[in-house]
Amino acid sequence: MPKFHKNNSAPSANNAAILYGRHPVTAAIANSRRQINKILCTAENADDIRALCAKHNRSAGIITIVDRKEIERILPREAVHQGLAACVKELEDYTLEDICIMAEEHPDCHILILDQVTDPQNIGAIIRSCVAFNTLALIMQDKNSPAESGAMAKASAGMIEHLPVCRVTNLSRAIEQLKNAGFWTIGMDGYAQTTINKLKKGGKTAVIMGSEGKGMRRLVEEACDITVRLPISEKVESLNVSTAAAIALYEISKA
Amino acid sequence: MPKFHKNNSAPSANNAAILYGRHPVTAAIANSRRQINKILCTAENADDIRALCAKHNRSAGIITIVDRKEIERILPREAVHQGLAACVKELEDYTLEDICIMAEEHPDCHILILDQVTDPQNIGAIIRSCVAFNTLALIMQDKNSPAESGAMAKASAGMIEHLPVCRVTNLSRAIEQLKNAGFWTIGMDGYAQTTINKLKKGGKTAVIMGSEGKGMRRLVEEACDITVRLPISEKVESLNVSTAAAIALYEISKA
Repeated sequence: MPKFHKNNSAPSANNAAILYGRHPVTAAIANSRRQINKILCTAENADDIRALCAKHNRSAGIITIVDRKEIERILPREAVHQGLAACVKELEDYTLEDICIMAEEHPDCHILILDQVTDPQNIGAIIRSCVAFNTLALIMQDKNSPAESGAMAKASAGMIEHLPVCRVTNLSRAIEQLKNAGFWTIGMDGYAQTTINKLKKGGKTAVIMGSEGKGMRRLVEEACDITVRLPISEKVESLNVSTAAAIALYEISKA
Repeated sequence: MPKFHKNNSAPSANNAAILYGRHPVTAAIANSRRQINKILCTAENADDIRALCAKHNRSAGIITIVDRKEIERILPREAVHQGLAACVKELEDYTLEDICIMAEEHPDCHILILDQVTDPQNIGAIIRSCVAFNTLALIMQDKNSPAESGAMAKASAGMIEHLPVCRVTNLSRAIEQLKNAGFWTIGMDGYAQTTINKLKKGGKTAVIMGSEGKGMRRLVEEACDITVRLPISEKVESLNVSTAAAIALYEISKA
């Protein structure tokens, strides 16, 4: 898969990232698409990690046994690392063409498009929900969306290894391309008349969500075939974007 | 409503809490059930807060204009306070009897029961979803569930002011009482055979959820009329408890 993603806000250069925690690191080891340069682990994790590397044909030479302090030295202060960290290369992004080709084999697939969602924790949580509900791919804008990071991988509980991600320059244009490829494009908008549960299901579907405060940008919204809302009480202005995404994916993925 | 909740893990004594951030503080001012002892706000918030206090018949004498540093001094380091904090008394808990009486007037209501969910952020996010989906009340165990706190109120986006909360000593016994009051009790369990979308809706319903790692305790699960699961991919061990709760409440609240 060709790479066209420019690394805008990564904490580290050269498309490198540091994963931490049991789920993110073990899922990365099991992912043949993931290049791992180094694994730091505490002594009590060493046997498990050696066995896992052997199982997935990774050299034991990438493993270094260290104490917790050495792991903490390379991570943000609040990182819950469970004695495990891995220096990795970011996963290769997919192109929109890759995703349209994958979709040809899945006539009832759905994808998720995020417009201006910037918080890595939210994006990680959304990735976890995408994998839970068999979302084919996640599309974001290349500007204004954070690069892969340890915090994002942690919030995804390692599910970042399982979800094709595509970053595009222009979301409205991407939505038009998806329509041409047979996708029905559904924007989530708190002011829409129709609620999402009233939609007819089936076919290739793209769900588009904006950020929590601002929603979709106007041009992105105008590119959608339809807008729908979640049926929530008037007492609540909105839901957290990762909660709203999970409910939308649950509803769309139902047979 | 009588109070029987013992304050187990509160950061402050005497059932006091410090709320912070725009949504939590403004929602507290608007809540006539909330006792507010003091509001600290920065100069740029002063006019709004004075007007809001006047609207809700609260004395302007509780407002003190301070600079941001003074607010930061009384809050956890990472608290996003937006120049607003309020020293309050915790809300009075409801009793199980209160909730059964409220339910008599709402034949299609649902309530949520949390077993051993301890993270205040998750509970706050769940409270926000409860209000979004018109949940009648939230029931937790009095031990092992955190007291109301600024972090919980913040994660609820102020919705903590709108949701009746009840803490009970014995959850299994509470479930039996709810059954006697006509509730159908549905436990969420990742290993259940039936998926939640297959349930017949309607009537008084109680949804019971365990913690993310451990699920419900055995006795709690055995007290349920039925257990169901969310229809998620085998790639994902589980969803975050607040995500799972939001989806369950969305599904149960659908007409």
